[in-house]
Amino acid sequence: MGKIVPRLFKGTRDFLPAEMRRREQVAGIFRSIFLRYGYEPLETPAIERYDLLTGKYGEDAEKLIYRLEYKGGRELALRYDLTVPLARVVAMYPELGLPFKRYQMAPVWRADRHSSRQGRYREFVQCDVDCVGSPSLLADAELIAILYEAFRMLGFDGVRIRVNDRQLLSGIIFGAGAPEGMEDEVCRSIDKVDKIGNDGVLAELRSKGIDDGVAHEILRLLGLPGDRYERSKQLAATVGNRPETAGGLETIERLFTMLAALDVPEGAVSFDPHLARGLDYYTGPIFETVIDDLPHIGSLSGGGRYDRMIGELTGRDLPATGTTLGLDRITTALDQLERGAEAPPAAALLVTVFGDELATESLRLAAELRREHGTMVEVFPGVEKLGRQFAYADRRGIPLVAVVGPDELDRGVVRVKDLASAEQQDVARGELAAFIENR
Amino acid sequence: MGKIVPRLFKGTRDFLPAEMRRREQVAGIFRSIFLRYGYEPLETPAIERYDLLTGKYGEDAEKLIYRLEYKGGRELALRYDLTVPLARVVAMYPELGLPFKRYQMAPVWRADRHSSRQGRYREFVQCDVDCVGSPSLLADAELIAILYEAFRMLGFDGVRIRVNDRQLLSGIIFGAGAPEGMEDEVCRSIDKVDKIGNDGVLAELRSKGIDDGVAHEILRLLGLPGDRYERSKQLAATVGNRPETAGGLETIERLFTMLAALDVPEGAVSFDPHLARGLDYYTGPIFETVIDDLPHIGSLSGGGRYDRMIGELTGRDLPATGTTLGLDRITTALDQLERGAEAPPAAALLVTVFGDELATESLRLAAELRREHGTMVEVFPGVEKLGRQFAYADRRGIPLVAVVGPDELDRGVVRVKDLASAEQQDVARGELAAFIENR
Repeated sequence: MGKIVPRLFKGTRDFLPAEMRRREQVAGIFRSIFLRYGYEPLETPAIERYDLLTGKYGEDAEKLIYRLEYKGGRELALRYDLTVPLARVVAMYPELGLPFKRYQMAPVWRADRHSSRQGRYREFVQCDVDCVGSPSLLADAELIAILYEAFRMLGFDGVRIRVNDRQLLSGIIFGAGAPEGMEDEVCRSIDKVDKIGNDGVLAELRSKGIDDGVAHEILRLLGLPGDRYERSKQLAATVGNRPETAGGLETIERLFTMLAALDVPEGAVSFDPHLARGLDYYTGPIFETVIDDLPHIGSLSGGGRYDRMIGELTGRDLPATGTTLGLDRITTALDQLERGAEAPPAAALLVTVFGDELATESLRLAAELRREHGTMVEVFPGVEKLGRQFAYADRRGIPLVAVVGPDELDRGVVRVKDLASAEQQDVARGELAAFIENR
Repeated sequence: MGKIVPRLFKGTRDFLPAEMRRREQVAGIFRSIFLRYGYEPLETPAIERYDLLTGKYGEDAEKLIYRLEYKGGRELALRYDLTVPLARVVAMYPELGLPFKRYQMAPVWRADRHSSRQGRYREFVQCDVDCVGSPSLLADAELIAILYEAFRMLGFDGVRIRVNDRQLLSGIIFGAGAPEGMEDEVCRSIDKVDKIGNDGVLAELRSKGIDDGVAHEILRLLGLPGDRYERSKQLAATVGNRPETAGGLETIERLFTMLAALDVPEGAVSFDPHLARGLDYYTGPIFETVIDDLPHIGSLSGGGRYDRMIGELTGRDLPATGTTLGLDRITTALDQLERGAEAPPAAALLVTVFGDELATESLRLAAELRREHGTMVEVFPGVEKLGRQFAYADRRGIPLVAVVGPDELDRGVVRVKDLASAEQQDVARGELAAFIENR
C-alpha cells in the first residue's frame, strides 16, 4: 500500500473534534428552531448533472463550477449552491405540495481563489431556509423571527437584523431620477457603501454614467436622519410618486407590525434603506444579520424574497423567500465573542486500566456507573502506564480519573484523582456516583 | 435563466422530509452514543488530492474513484471512504494524541454500477467509528458494546452481533492443511457461505486449488456443533497445535468476558467461526450486526481490528480497530420492521390565517402559545382559502387547526378543528394551551 501524502487541497479544511463540537452545537440549535417553525430537512446529492447547473449562475460564476470526469460522456458537476437543487426538487416531486418549507445544511463547492483570511473556501457548508409557494409577507416575517431566535439561543446579544425592501429601493433609485435599466447596477454600488463609503459609491455611480445630481439625491434619500416613521414620511413626501415607493413603504410597515406580534424586540431589527444585498434576483423584503461589535466579520445571514427565480427555473409561477446562514462566520463570531455554551466534556470520569488481568474490572465499574446512575464515564481503551492514561484524560478535558488496582479491589474502593487539584482519595465503590455528582 | 432539467444522476438520491426525519433520528442516536463512549466527531473534506487516494484500495477499486477536472494540473478526487482520510488526519495532527477515538458520518462516492434493488449507490453516507493507537482488546469490546446499545436504542430487538477472530481463522485454515499464502483467498470464499452455501464454498475452494479433503476439514471445523465452550474445546483439540488457534481462542474468550462486564447480554452476541469479513486488512477480532428476522438485508454493521493498515499508510506503527454502520440499510430495516419511534409532527397546532388584515392576529396567537406555554405551533405562511390551509396541516401531520376570524376575535375565542375527527369547537383563548395539551 502506498504511503499517504499528508496534505489537504487548498481551500478545503479538516474540522478536528474541538471545532466540530462547536459546529455541531450551532447546527443543532439551527435545526431545532427550523423544525419548531415547521421547516423540514431536505438532502440532495453533491453530484448533480452538469446541465442542471449551466446557465443558472451567470458567466463568471459558471466558471467556478467543479466538473467531474465521467466515462460514458455524461457530464457531472458538484453542487454550487442549494437553491438550484431546491428548484429541481420542487419541480420533480409535486407530491410535496405547496407551500414547501425546507432547510438544508450541506457543503457546496466553488473553484474560486482561496483566502482563509477572508474566509473564502472552495468547500464550505451552506445553511439555507426557504419557503416556496407563498407570496405572503407572513413567510418573510417568520424567517426574520427564526433568525432572531437562532442568534439569541446561540448566546449573541448584540445581534441586529437589517431590513429593507427591494421595491422601495427601486422607488428611491427611479424617484431620484436614475434612468430605466440601471437599477441592478445602482443596487450593486449601493451595496458596497460599508466598504467604500459614500464617496466611493458616488465615484462608482459616476463611472456607470449616473448623473452626479441624481447620485447625490439617491445617497441623501438612503441616509435620511430620524427614526423609521420620520424616514418613511420623508421618503413618501419625496419619491412617493413612484408606485414602488408606496408599495415598499407599506411592506416595511406591515413587516414591523408582524415582527412585533412575533415577539421580536424593536431593537433587534433596523430599517436600513442602504441595504441592497447585491444579488439581482431579490424582488421584495431583504434582510441580513450583523453584529455591531464585530463589523469586520460581515453579515452572518443574508436573504430575502425572490418571487421570480424559481418560476424561471421550473416554468411554474412560484413565489419564494429564504435566507442563508453562514456557519463558518457564526462559529468565528462565537469564538471571538467567547460566547456560546462551552461544550461540556463527554465524560465526567475516566476509568483507567491497571493491567491486563484487571481490564475487565474497569469495564465492570464503568458499566455499573452507567447502568445504575447514568454517569457519563469513559474507560481508557488500552493498558498503558497510568501517567499516560492520566494525560489522555487531561487532553480530553475529563476532570476525574479512577484507578481500580488489586489493592483497591480488595478494599472495595476506587482511587480517584482530581486532575485540576492533583488531590487523590479513596472513595467507596457505592459512593462513587454521588462523589462524581458532587463535583 | 435556463430552465432546469428535473433529473438526478443515476445512483444519487434526494432525501425528502419524511425520509430525512428517520435518517436524522438514526444519526442522532448514533451521535449521542458515540459521544457517551468518548468518541469525538471529525469532518474531512469531500475533495481530496488524488495522490492521497492512489495505491490505497487495489486496482479494481481505484477505477471507481471519481476524479475532478481542475485547472492548473493538480489532480483531485472525491473521497472514496473515511479510513484513508482518518489516516491522513492522524499523520497531519500529532497534537490529537493517542489513542484517538473518532466518528465520522459523511458521504463517500464510488463510480460503481448502480443498483437500487441491491442498495448500491454512487453517493452514500458512511458512518465510521474507529479507535487508533490502542492494541488492546478493550477497544474492540467497547465498540461491540456501542453497537449493541445503538441498535437497542433504535428499537431493534432481534439484533445479533456475530463475532470471530481473524487469527483463529488462520489457525483453522492452516491447521486443516491449506498451503501458506492461500489464507486471504480461502477467507474470501468462506465469507460467501450465507450466499452460496457449503457446496458453493467447496466448489470455489476446489477451483482455487485447495485439496478436497482440506476444504471439507475447514468447513467441518467452521461448522462444529455445540455451544461456544464446546466448539472452542474441539478447535483447541484439533488445530490447537497452530499458535494462531490458541491466540484466537483466547481472544474470543476474553472478548466475551469483557462484553459480560459491559452489560451486553449473552444472547445478543454469537461466536461464529464462519464470519470472515472478506477484507484482507483485518488482523484480530472481527464483528458484524445482523437481524435474524431480515436475512435479506445483510449486515447492518461490519468491522474489526486492523493493526497494520494505518501503519502502512502513515509509516508509523498504529494499531486500530473500528466499525462501519450502514445508515441506508438501518433505515430500511427500521421501515420493514416498522420500528423506531415515529417522529412526532413538528407542530401540535396550525394557526390558519383568515385574511390579510387579520394575519398579524394569527402571528400574535402563535407567539403567545410559544412564549407562555412552549406549545409547538406553526402559522400557515400565507393567505389562502381555509380548505387549502387545512389540507396543508393534514399533509404535514399536524393534528389540530385553529381559525382566528373577526367573529372569534370579538368573542375572545379560537375555533379549533380536529382534523382526524372533523370535530370543531370554540376554545377560550386562555384555555387553548391546556386544550392542546389534553389531546
